[in-house]
Amino acid sequence: MTRPDGKLNEEKVFKDPVHRYIHVRDELIWDLIGTREFQRLRRIRQLGTTFMTFHGAEHTRFNHSLGVYEIMRRMIVNLEEEDTWDPDERLVCLAAALLHDVGHGPFSHSFEKVFHMDHEKWTREIITGDTEVNAVLQRMGADFPEKVADVIAKTYDNKLIVSLISSQIDADRMDYLLRDAFYTGVSYGQFDMERILRVMRANEDQAVFKHSGMHAVEDYIMSRYQMYWQVYFHPVTRSAEVILSKILHRARELMAEGYTFKTEPDRLLSIFSESPALHDYLKLDESVVMFYFQEWEEEEDPILSDLCRRFMHRRLFKYVECDPSEQMLIWPELQQLFRTIGVDPDYYLVIDSSSDLPYDFYRPGEKDERLPIHLLMPDGELRELSRESDVVEAISGKKRTDHKLYFPKDILLDESSFPEEKQRIRALLMKQEGEYDAT
Amino acid sequence: MTRPDGKLNEEKVFKDPVHRYIHVRDELIWDLIGTREFQRLRRIRQLGTTFMTFHGAEHTRFNHSLGVYEIMRRMIVNLEEEDTWDPDERLVCLAAALLHDVGHGPFSHSFEKVFHMDHEKWTREIITGDTEVNAVLQRMGADFPEKVADVIAKTYDNKLIVSLISSQIDADRMDYLLRDAFYTGVSYGQFDMERILRVMRANEDQAVFKHSGMHAVEDYIMSRYQMYWQVYFHPVTRSAEVILSKILHRARELMAEGYTFKTEPDRLLSIFSESPALHDYLKLDESVVMFYFQEWEEEEDPILSDLCRRFMHRRLFKYVECDPSEQMLIWPELQQLFRTIGVDPDYYLVIDSSSDLPYDFYRPGEKDERLPIHLLMPDGELRELSRESDVVEAISGKKRTDHKLYFPKDILLDESSFPEEKQRIRALLMKQEGEYDAT
Amino acid sequence: MTRPDGKLNEEKVFKDPVHRYIHVRDELIWDLIGTREFQRLRRIRQLGTTFMTFHGAEHTRFNHSLGVYEIMRRMIVNLEEEDTWDPDERLVCLAAALLHDVGHGPFSHSFEKVFHMDHEKWTREIITGDTEVNAVLQRMGADFPEKVADVIAKTYDNKLIVSLISSQIDADRMDYLLRDAFYTGVSYGQFDMERILRVMRANEDQAVFKHSGMHAVEDYIMSRYQMYWQVYFHPVTRSAEVILSKILHRARELMAEGYTFKTEPDRLLSIFSESPALHDYLKLDESVVMFYFQEWEEEEDPILSDLCRRFMHRRLFKYVECDPSEQMLIWPELQQLFRTIGVDPDYYLVIDSSSDLPYDFYRPGEKDERLPIHLLMPDGELRELSRESDVVEAISGKKRTDHKLYFPKDILLDESSFPEEKQRIRALLMKQEGEYDAT
Amino acid sequence: MTRPDGKLNEEKVFKDPVHRYIHVRDELIWDLIGTREFQRLRRIRQLGTTFMTFHGAEHTRFNHSLGVYEIMRRMIVNLEEEDTWDPDERLVCLAAALLHDVGHGPFSHSFEKVFHMDHEKWTREIITGDTEVNAVLQRMGADFPEKVADVIAKTYDNKLIVSLISSQIDADRMDYLLRDAFYTGVSYGQFDMERILRVMRANEDQAVFKHSGMHAVEDYIMSRYQMYWQVYFHPVTRSAEVILSKILHRARELMAEGYTFKTEPDRLLSIFSESPALHDYLKLDESVVMFYFQEWEEEEDPILSDLCRRFMHRRLFKYVECDPSEQMLIWPELQQLFRTIGVDPDYYLVIDSSSDLPYDFYRPGEKDERLPIHLLMPDGELRELSRESDVVEAISGKKRTDHKLYFPKDILLDESSFPEEKQRIRALLMKQEGEYDAT
Repeated sequence: MTRPDGKLNEEKVFKDPVHRYIHVRDELIWDLIGTREFQRLRRIRQLGTTFMTFHGAEHTRFNHSLGVYEIMRRMIVNLEEEDTWDPDERLVCLAAALLHDVGHGPFSHSFEKVFHMDHEKWTREIITGDTEVNAVLQRMGADFPEKVADVIAKTYDNKLIVSLISSQIDADRMDYLLRDAFYTGVSYGQFDMERILRVMRANEDQAVFKHSGMHAVEDYIMSRYQMYWQVYFHPVTRSAEVILSKILHRARELMAEGYTFKTEPDRLLSIFSESPALHDYLKLDESVVMFYFQEWEEEEDPILSDLCRRFMHRRLFKYVECDPSEQMLIWPELQQLFRTIGVDPDYYLVIDSSSDLPYDFYRPGEKDERLPIHLLMPDGELRELSRESDVVEAISGKKRTDHKLYFPKDILLDESSFPEEKQRIRALLMKQEGEYDAT
Repeated sequence: MTRPDGKLNEEKVFKDPVHRYIHVRDELIWDLIGTREFQRLRRIRQLGTTFMTFHGAEHTRFNHSLGVYEIMRRMIVNLEEEDTWDPDERLVCLAAALLHDVGHGPFSHSFEKVFHMDHEKWTREIITGDTEVNAVLQRMGADFPEKVADVIAKTYDNKLIVSLISSQIDADRMDYLLRDAFYTGVSYGQFDMERILRVMRANEDQAVFKHSGMHAVEDYIMSRYQMYWQVYFHPVTRSAEVILSKILHRARELMAEGYTFKTEPDRLLSIFSESPALHDYLKLDESVVMFYFQEWEEEEDPILSDLCRRFMHRRLFKYVECDPSEQMLIWPELQQLFRTIGVDPDYYLVIDSSSDLPYDFYRPGEKDERLPIHLLMPDGELRELSRESDVVEAISGKKRTDHKLYFPKDILLDESSFPEEKQRIRALLMKQEGEYDAT
Repeated sequence: MTRPDGKLNEEKVFKDPVHRYIHVRDELIWDLIGTREFQRLRRIRQLGTTFMTFHGAEHTRFNHSLGVYEIMRRMIVNLEEEDTWDPDERLVCLAAALLHDVGHGPFSHSFEKVFHMDHEKWTREIITGDTEVNAVLQRMGADFPEKVADVIAKTYDNKLIVSLISSQIDADRMDYLLRDAFYTGVSYGQFDMERILRVMRANEDQAVFKHSGMHAVEDYIMSRYQMYWQVYFHPVTRSAEVILSKILHRARELMAEGYTFKTEPDRLLSIFSESPALHDYLKLDESVVMFYFQEWEEEEDPILSDLCRRFMHRRLFKYVECDPSEQMLIWPELQQLFRTIGVDPDYYLVIDSSSDLPYDFYRPGEKDERLPIHLLMPDGELRELSRESDVVEAISGKKRTDHKLYFPKDILLDESSFPEEKQRIRALLMKQEGEYDAT
Repeated sequence: MTRPDGKLNEEKVFKDPVHRYIHVRDELIWDLIGTREFQRLRRIRQLGTTFMTFHGAEHTRFNHSLGVYEIMRRMIVNLEEEDTWDPDERLVCLAAALLHDVGHGPFSHSFEKVFHMDHEKWTREIITGDTEVNAVLQRMGADFPEKVADVIAKTYDNKLIVSLISSQIDADRMDYLLRDAFYTGVSYGQFDMERILRVMRANEDQAVFKHSGMHAVEDYIMSRYQMYWQVYFHPVTRSAEVILSKILHRARELMAEGYTFKTEPDRLLSIFSESPALHDYLKLDESVVMFYFQEWEEEEDPILSDLCRRFMHRRLFKYVECDPSEQMLIWPELQQLFRTIGVDPDYYLVIDSSSDLPYDFYRPGEKDERLPIHLLMPDGELRELSRESDVVEAISGKKRTDHKLYFPKDILLDESSFPEEKQRIRALLMKQEGEYDAT
């Protein structure tokens, strides 16, 4: 099937709605796609609970990973025209692009928060541990898996390559903005990727962009900004995530208490109890989670079953905007009132905060410093993007945070019990309400 | 929240990548969407196993059902301009469009074939039985659920309305062609729906189309034809479906034999044994199926575990074209050879046939007769489409059937055992092989 | 600016709405684009009078020529992977693709019919005569211009290359279908060009297509078929063309009669009188034609001025379908009636016929035989497209002709004179009327 | 053909690539489109000389005017749902939207600058003077034309209606951003118009936007900003405009000097000499201008003929960035050097400045004050956009100006004469050069 140079006899393609076609020429890539660990990404949605807000957003990490690979492939075609490009790095780059998300689990965001896990650690384990992925990578040399893992971990020597896959403008971000916009149906995520790839140049330790393409880069930054607030932090999505987290909390608590489940969550046990083995982790996917949640609708614990029903049938919490400092004043009274009407505020009165730093210039010494984007001026000088672009400057380094208070409005409207308390709660809370849909 | 006329105080919209926005004005529709039976459609893919061929095709029946509703809504806006339109039918139409697929289960195609079930029967039960959907419909009058069910069953008196939702050119087909093309990324399914809606006119018992729009209708028929062969009958998709069916067969057989499962498939029991109760049926979704398949990878029965691993990790059967009459000659030898090498031909040597009748004119008296599409000529006369269109005539009434023989090529290539028999099998089979991808 | 290998120091690109970017690497191509003969194509619309029907169709032959070049460039990238490709042919192909339409004049269709000219002859003259285009081509060798001209004339030795630019599926047709669909806004012309290019293979004397891509080719043929009847032969476009031809006829007749024009059409003289010199021909463009037509609105000759006003202000003729054999019966009476009411039937009663042969298989010995499209079967055999495709077979070799009778309906409705005769004419003519718009 | 209510018997539609269909129901609109003054807009490009940079930008003001009408039509459908909407304003709005650009002449930008004309004055004259447009408008009442003209002039009483057609976010701007992006092929001009229309609400004297739609409005402002710098102020377009202006200057100067033209520009006379009559103005279009420019290629005056050849064959001036204050220092020397080498600096050494104020908040008392965009907050309060949006705030009220110095680089490179002076000029000028293309 393949040739001594590692190329497939015939190019394989995948039809992709975002990039039209995804082209595979290398046996290595083809075989990585066929591994069980990579195929598992088909069962993990790219956008977690977003599908509850935007019904088109059912696309998976399998989908996205192929897209990141394809962008990297096109980047390399361009970079190969520069003298400084080292052709030996090609397969490392492509494999890292393909595998950068392979460690993600189901609904990663919530699971990681509740169980203090880290998908990046799992990614490294899958690449370097006892897996089909590792076996395929080994064929390129004993140190090849480590190289790939290092690129993803940003510890690889060649920083240019690291920047292609994780920087403020990289193959990963470009794919997800385009892809998430496509599947949700919003127009915000569109930008001219072809133009950005055309003006990209290799610099010592980072990809930079010819000044003549500044507006395309600006447009990309603005897309990112818009997608965060229009899609990724959509309050309905966050409501579903609040409920999901509370289900996980409750299940863990019940387990700790020795509660007897009607359906014992065997598949989740390792996660709930201790540091799970890779083998067990790889068996987790969103089907498994959804299966248990559906089962738990019939558990006796009223909190667990109620939350699961809410999640499965999309009976989400409503929300009000909240200013944490103000909120503190009414917080004790609110919690007390919730308890009075028989609703546990630990599960049913939740503040969720989202914040975004749309673009950051370099602030040495700070935690989480991010490498800024550099423009290549006609005279060969590099200049940091926000110095050239008013628009980017406007949003640079400005962290915007949004706080919302989530709660089950349906319960508060049921006046068959505690009508006065509920009225008081409503008075405290309801200035403004969320909506079902995404617009 | 709502007004006496049944309208919501403010229109709700869903962002939809295919129709841009889906508009909901009626409380009835809004509340139907919120029922648990309708929300369940989020967990059932529109295209079954197609996602294994086209990785974008993860969209659900929830998604499609909203789309059919939206097309119906737009149709009615146009029809309301005609004198003959009865405004009382509006909500019946909209509800029927929304609910026409509500009875679908997971991977319907395979489940229905193996268990002789019928999603249309379930649709009627959900609409008329003890469900949240029924409770919402009842609000419009005691006979309203029956009306909606009759439209879907095509037994409703007003045949015009039936034709809007099930005929050779209806809201259902228009949505799925556009939607499936969008999510798979192929270009075949595109046609000018806006034009078709514009030239649609109400006739006594059927929607007809102004002659000036004939080419848009032609284009729709051709899209349909192309989608069938490029997407719906794609050989890789069918390979996944063959394996899925064989898993179900095997599980049923084992159950009949009294085999003890490590993981007893409680959720599937009702289906496996007898006519399931509605309550049990509604708990089935694709998460449940995927959960069991993943569990069964570790069953002791080698056939069940092997097939499940193949399905979960996409190690599909390969195929060769086959001519059934020729095949019959080598069939006994092939089966015998499979047995010799220890591979059960009942599970591993499968002929799958697909056939499509892209457009049919009226052949009275025949079974499955389909109402033809009529053009409204400038002089007011009606003329059957294939009489006006060469292209449609070319494909009218011609059933095209395609037979493929599926088998596990990987086993045949492993020469560590039975090398001669396997070589003989390969000689009998392999003229041409399928490919991983969709192009 | 350029390097010894004839490459530009930096790739140039044009932003193109159809192909996104048009890439130019070769100095030869860059300089050809800059010649005055090629720049002149900016002043000649791709679709003649179609802009009167589809207001978006203002795109020019400059636009299309770049597109054909770009498709050819992409074809060659693919063909270069085949052993049989001769790299020396590359620039001949690209130049021929770019220049294939360079001899077109304003509203070619009408001018060629009325003045018996031939744009292909002009194309050859521009390439081989005393022009900037020729000077640029000469740089590649003294025989280079002839080679390019031969490819366009289909007399080039390498028939494979001829087929890339003129056959039933070539760079020219692919570009215009996509481009004309884009600018008119219709959906009919879309097909998956990327797929077609992917499955294209070089055969001895023709490009052929892998069988696995048959449906993409089918789709292309259907697009072509639809575009002909929906766009290219649109009756309103033909009405404008009928008037345009009649203006040219009238002007030539007046000139022959020695009529004194208020504005003497100096720029048109050479065309009107005899075989024009290349130098004069190159000064013709649509601005010149439109300028004279506007001037002639004020000529004393009532026919010329009326027809020019109709063309400039879009007061087109209406039409009825006509069956030539039936028409013959009423023709003498109609003509007589027109004369009676003072309207010259030679200018105001015009039959226009359009016919299309959407796909043709090979019929040796016939005039205008067209090379059929061949599929490359898995076993290496070639098979003619219509033998594999029902749909293509249905429309193969079938010439469809449409006849329409055009006339000034406005005059017939003015009942201030000859009311009876006009009524009689109307009775003879009006079964059905054309419409302003394109739907 | 029409009914007493002024509606057409059947809706007419135009196929439009941007809005898909343009719907016409009112006889008034239909007849306005058919007037010769409106049809004349087919011969005036929407984007002047931009087609020299972006070859797709051949679209006309006819095209755009229909688009503005269609957006207004959709706006009104939405506004009609509000109680405050006065249905009598409907036709005034639609007519004003359709006719808002009817006074534009060929290459308006340059002509207006050189001849101190004002297309808005012409628009008013066409609407209220002796024209077909006026005759059609009169049918709606004697004061109807004045009303329409007042809306366009922003002097109409109902300021809400004025704001729909001229404000910082109006039907005109929304159409041109979408349309110009479509025809040029750039991605910058895209935004979600449907969403903006959905969140638009009528306020007393202005349309305002629900706060929930802020991001769509932000996106629109950013599109506008990007289109200005990427398309409208593209340096190559401005080079063509510089040459065009200089041709007009030269022709006027020659005329003033009594120069005898080989081709006397009869059609331009009125414009060149004095305030032209409406009748003469309406005969101007881009065909006429291009005709004369082509003729003038052969005039004896070397400046006029050279500039015309440059314009017709796209031999444009190159440019360098310039800082006016710095420039002043070298200006006298540069001019002197140009004169020495025999090149008139008045025609061949041109500074062109473009500036854009992407969004402005209200600064009472200032000239050119622009009505700011207001958001409608959930509590009913209005808030100015830039107070809510960081991004808009960043670019608010900031005028950005760009200065470029244009000159014929080709002459400076010809070293057959004055090599030293040319070398000195190049040293003074060339830091950076423009490019042919748009990327």
